Amino acid sequence: MPRAPSLHRDRALPADPGVRAIARELLGATEGLPIVSMHGHVDAALLAADAPFPDPAALLVTPDHYLVRMLVSQASSPGAIRDSGVRTAAELGVAGGAAVDAETDPRRIWRRFCAGWSALRGTPTRYWLEHVLSEVFEAPVWPSPATADRLYDHLAERLAQPEYRPRALFERFGIELLATTDAATSTLADHHALADTFGAGRVVPTFRPDTLLEAGAVGWRGELAALSAASGVDAFGYDGYLDALRERRAAFIRAGARASDHGHLSADTTPLPEAEARALFERALEGRLTSDAAAAFTAHMLFQMAAMSADDGLVMQLHPGVLRDHDRGAAAAHGPNIGYDIPVAAEFTRALRPVLEAFGHHPGFHLIVFTVDETSYSRELAPLAGAYPALRLGAPWWFLDAPDAMRRFREATTETAGLRNLSGFVDDTRAFCSIPARHDLARRVDAGYLARLVAEHRLDLDEALDAAVDLAYRLPLESYPAPRGL
Amino acid sequence: MPRAPSLHRDRALPADPGVRAIARELLGATEGLPIVSMHGHVDAALLAADAPFPDPAALLVTPDHYLVRMLVSQASSPGAIRDSGVRTAAELGVAGGAAVDAETDPRRIWRRFCAGWSALRGTPTRYWLEHVLSEVFEAPVWPSPATADRLYDHLAERLAQPEYRPRALFERFGIELLATTDAATSTLADHHALADTFGAGRVVPTFRPDTLLEAGAVGWRGELAALSAASGVDAFGYDGYLDALRERRAAFIRAGARASDHGHLSADTTPLPEAEARALFERALEGRLTSDAAAAFTAHMLFQMAAMSADDGLVMQLHPGVLRDHDRGAAAAHGPNIGYDIPVAAEFTRALRPVLEAFGHHPGFHLIVFTVDETSYSRELAPLAGAYPALRLGAPWWFLDAPDAMRRFREATTETAGLRNLSGFVDDTRAFCSIPARHDLARRVDAGYLARLVAEHRLDLDEALDAAVDLAYRLPLESYPAPRGL
Amino acid sequence: MPRAPSLHRDRALPADPGVRAIARELLGATEGLPIVSMHGHVDAALLAADAPFPDPAALLVTPDHYLVRMLVSQASSPGAIRDSGVRTAAELGVAGGAAVDAETDPRRIWRRFCAGWSALRGTPTRYWLEHVLSEVFEAPVWPSPATADRLYDHLAERLAQPEYRPRALFERFGIELLATTDAATSTLADHHALADTFGAGRVVPTFRPDTLLEAGAVGWRGELAALSAASGVDAFGYDGYLDALRERRAAFIRAGARASDHGHLSADTTPLPEAEARALFERALEGRLTSDAAAAFTAHMLFQMAAMSADDGLVMQLHPGVLRDHDRGAAAAHGPNIGYDIPVAAEFTRALRPVLEAFGHHPGFHLIVFTVDETSYSRELAPLAGAYPALRLGAPWWFLDAPDAMRRFREATTETAGLRNLSGFVDDTRAFCSIPARHDLARRVDAGYLARLVAEHRLDLDEALDAAVDLAYRLPLESYPAPRGL
Repeated sequence: MPRAPSLHRDRALPADPGVRAIARELLGATEGLPIVSMHGHVDAALLAADAPFPDPAALLVTPDHYLVRMLVSQASSPGAIRDSGVRTAAELGVAGGAAVDAETDPRRIWRRFCAGWSALRGTPTRYWLEHVLSEVFEAPVWPSPATADRLYDHLAERLAQPEYRPRALFERFGIELLATTDAATSTLADHHALADTFGAGRVVPTFRPDTLLEAGAVGWRGELAALSAASGVDAFGYDGYLDALRERRAAFIRAGARASDHGHLSADTTPLPEAEARALFERALEGRLTSDAAAAFTAHMLFQMAAMSADDGLVMQLHPGVLRDHDRGAAAAHGPNIGYDIPVAAEFTRALRPVLEAFGHHPGFHLIVFTVDETSYSRELAPLAGAYPALRLGAPWWFLDAPDAMRRFREATTETAGLRNLSGFVDDTRAFCSIPARHDLARRVDAGYLARLVAEHRLDLDEALDAAVDLAYRLPLESYPAPRGL
Repeated sequence: MPRAPSLHRDRALPADPGVRAIARELLGATEGLPIVSMHGHVDAALLAADAPFPDPAALLVTPDHYLVRMLVSQASSPGAIRDSGVRTAAELGVAGGAAVDAETDPRRIWRRFCAGWSALRGTPTRYWLEHVLSEVFEAPVWPSPATADRLYDHLAERLAQPEYRPRALFERFGIELLATTDAATSTLADHHALADTFGAGRVVPTFRPDTLLEAGAVGWRGELAALSAASGVDAFGYDGYLDALRERRAAFIRAGARASDHGHLSADTTPLPEAEARALFERALEGRLTSDAAAAFTAHMLFQMAAMSADDGLVMQLHPGVLRDHDRGAAAAHGPNIGYDIPVAAEFTRALRPVLEAFGHHPGFHLIVFTVDETSYSRELAPLAGAYPALRLGAPWWFLDAPDAMRRFREATTETAGLRNLSGFVDDTRAFCSIPARHDLARRVDAGYLARLVAEHRLDLDEALDAAVDLAYRLPLESYPAPRGL
Repeated sequence: MPRAPSLHRDRALPADPGVRAIARELLGATEGLPIVSMHGHVDAALLAADAPFPDPAALLVTPDHYLVRMLVSQASSPGAIRDSGVRTAAELGVAGGAAVDAETDPRRIWRRFCAGWSALRGTPTRYWLEHVLSEVFEAPVWPSPATADRLYDHLAERLAQPEYRPRALFERFGIELLATTDAATSTLADHHALADTFGAGRVVPTFRPDTLLEAGAVGWRGELAALSAASGVDAFGYDGYLDALRERRAAFIRAGARASDHGHLSADTTPLPEAEARALFERALEGRLTSDAAAAFTAHMLFQMAAMSADDGLVMQLHPGVLRDHDRGAAAAHGPNIGYDIPVAAEFTRALRPVLEAFGHHPGFHLIVFTVDETSYSRELAPLAGAYPALRLGAPWWFLDAPDAMRRFREATTETAGLRNLSGFVDDTRAFCSIPARHDLARRVDAGYLARLVAEHRLDLDEALDAAVDLAYRLPLESYPAPRGL
């Protein structure tokens, strides 16, 4: 029997009654605050078009790589005691790559999701989905094989109403500021349209040049062509390439951008002598760059990005250490972003040294680092953030954006980095409707952490109240200042 | 004064009264369940022969490398405030290697153990021994210098009774299924005898070919000779070698085996081009393999083992990252397995990629990975297990099979891998009498973990009850399915 | 409004009422114990001269690199919501390096510190400072912009009184034994004077030869000259160099030293063939040593130090894995030890193997290892300490000497290494007045950890009481025995 579809008021708060009472008080100080979402992956077109969401599966299942991966991972061989009923991403409607057999019936996708609901136990995906279903869509029942159709109909009926269109939800969610992530070659047309609708600076782009900085990779020349077209500068030469990047950064800043975003395998930021960088660029154009040289060029370009940030004021965000498309066969069959991006160890102390020695005390430079390698928390990132004014630690990212992982982040970083050398919470989500769920969960976990410090007489209650508001609201605003001159 | 020799009903449950109450309820659902022990190191001969255990020291002290290492590690120099009274493994009866002076008087060994009892504070060895003494042997007192002889006499008297022979204990322990670990060249004679006694499939072998896969190592040619003899196939050529391995796997499957087990230094599974593998094999026969080439050959063979598993259905178990016989002098003097196997960092994301890309979605392939490097939990293993259907995380292994370490495992893996991409509990013990203690402790720690999720409103009680039974009983059965065709 | 300047009696104890009650009882057994401080960085000259501390800033702010780094790290760009008001270490009076603009007005430094007080929330620095202000100096108010001058005047008045001179505080703190850290070339004049004052063996030196072992580094020849002068042995040849080191160790032992202390980037202890070591030494004298060869020579010398320790009985302390002066510009501008020493990953299993195989069971050899890389706790250090009699784990060090980090250390090491293969608490502080605060905090955190084991029925109360005294008092004494023959 499904339990009553409501969320407990004390969800994700500590179990100890004394600590919980303090946590409730801290949560009271943040749960009404607006959402500042400075590192997200919602498509600006969603808000610009403001079309109704097509159906429950297209909204909540198919695009959610956390969910797709978990259901597929529990596919079992015949004879297993328990069976999720899902074998491949295509059965959940994922139609990327070479897929020709992707399920197109949203109701069938939805039933598969509901049949696999128990596979999500203990995961943050479960928490977020419960929040979305209950708080955003007033679901009458939780997902289960028996309730799948009733729930589908309920959601489909809601999605047809104007109050459930993207912009209406945007207002209902209390989003004060939303940063999207955009290819460096984007026209930013949707953002221009949104500036007309919402006013300037409420939905802002983020400059993401990853593919441009991976010289010699498949598709790189195409990226250079797009860069040339977007910037009006010929990017097929090293100087023009740098100028075109500068021009695009300026265009992003004009469109309200506050940050750039960089996700390469390594955090290395070692610059090359100019002549060598120039030579590698030429070699990349000729398609003759070795993989080591390509990595060295990317590191060089991260240094250049830092130098440009110190100059133009875009906050630099770095999140290294993920091996993308671990299963190349699955990527070919179903497309990227279906759960096969797997972390590897990431090193920061040596990797960030060039950028921190050059710009770590520069008043105009702001660097925010995210990691999915927890080993770097207390060993490298907290000591670095506790020393360099320019560096702040990003919120627990991706797989670590979950209750126990968030708690570990606080426990491993606060004693060395303090409570302010931080980005504050960022949600990093593609799933628009999950934005409030993610901020709510983070505020709860932080309330629990701070409440323990209060209960252990390590922090006064008034300080904890102040810190809770910092983490939820003030730090994201402070960590992503608008570039100078705006 | 020794405390009363009984175990507290709430041992290893969380201290918070509210969480403890829930944990008790969860424990109630698992404490009566049979034991499924799918990864153990009890010798099948013990059950086949069913002879009485010789004496308390030979049963509980000398073969327990957790215990021997801990007592020896606290040997102190003259003048130390506190002294365990034990200097070397030989003083505890360990007679491996070149030892000529090993203690042979079991009572003297037992007294040394009792004198060092306090050295075990805070360790799982202490917990397991208390359970064995109290629950299995109804000990009247805890070990101490003052009680050593009384306790020895009590145990010796018990061991002489038929109810304390191995098979009687096997039934009393409620073991439904026990997997042993056996050399790939074993005749499996004991298993055949046990199948006659207990019925087929209750005590089953596990295929362990480590020494065969480390080409060129000392003793490798002897292993090949044994392989040839056991399989009836000449293994002194690459093709015959592979055929002989296949034949032995088939023989193990006929004897009820469900899994293979692999413990090399690295998890690398990169296959070689066939010609290169063939050439390395020839070079190994000639004794001319470099250590790098030997490692590459082992990696290649792990890939071959995976391919054979996908074909014949033996579950593949991998537990890399341990440097065996760290102190080569101690190994020479006292033999292996006395505490000098020390973990090193282990990498999985890149190492497992070849096998997972090839067989990660194969319905007949099952891979279970164990680690003693906790850094891989949230960074590599949970993301991999949360993506690939073929991969499950093994239970916290070896040093990590302990209350706080088990809790850390759950906290670091569940949010990303869920509660089912797991092997469930396996005990990995050589100490027959400790099997119930280990399962009991794991069930308690899991009850405590799940109880916290319930208390924090992150999991419903009925789901937690279901998950507790999964972890204790269903998942081991499901994770080690009998090979097809049986 | 600043809170009343007193410390809560239950500070840093667990929040759960039942666990807290046990923790209070455990704390009761240790809070009156004397302080044994076997690894500190207080300057012996401080006690030898016994001059009054000059002013509050010189006592509590300028020399505290934990504090300086944290205030500087929160320097913000113009327009930030919150501003610590401090931009550089020089503004806090740090006058090392090339600094020409360091603040010299102690009151101005003090005001800056008070303005940045909230930057320390959640850090151990905050805890230590509160303890110093409240317990040592009876501060009437906590720091804040409004109270800065009043607090300054209060402290200045205290510092002028004889009861607040170093030796009076030393007695008031209840320090039974204090080890300082001294250059291997030190005359130890201050120690000789202190032996006259306090009696022999109460304030003892520690032999620190780091700069002598880093052959070929800048300044190395100058170090050799100092070594020659101090030892009376010409150290500009390999044999003389070793003899001079031996002579200095003997001089330290005569002055009461119990230990040597070694902090290089790596823990590698691989010895070189003698001819090769000799050749590298010669090459270093000629200034032609590559950095790889220099690292190999240092590793070789660590092995030599271990061999000398086995011979002369000085306990060997190792704390690798820190990249010193990460920001070379800051080091040049402000000097070393201002917060830019950043940890890197450290490996121990392979690195310590040569020394442990050679001396790990030697009754006269004692090795204590510290780390700031938590990943080595359960993976490498606890298994090694749980096997080799000679090895003990040092207390959580540096950034990890903080409540949550100390708890993680206990949880990650106890189950594998037990509660006695440990150094017990060492404070590692340069800040004389913080010594009692650090021992108090460690005793509280250990009481909380042990109380949980008791509450979970994993340890009896009488055992926990015994273990608490071990960790606070007995283990430091036992782990640093006086060399034989004294």
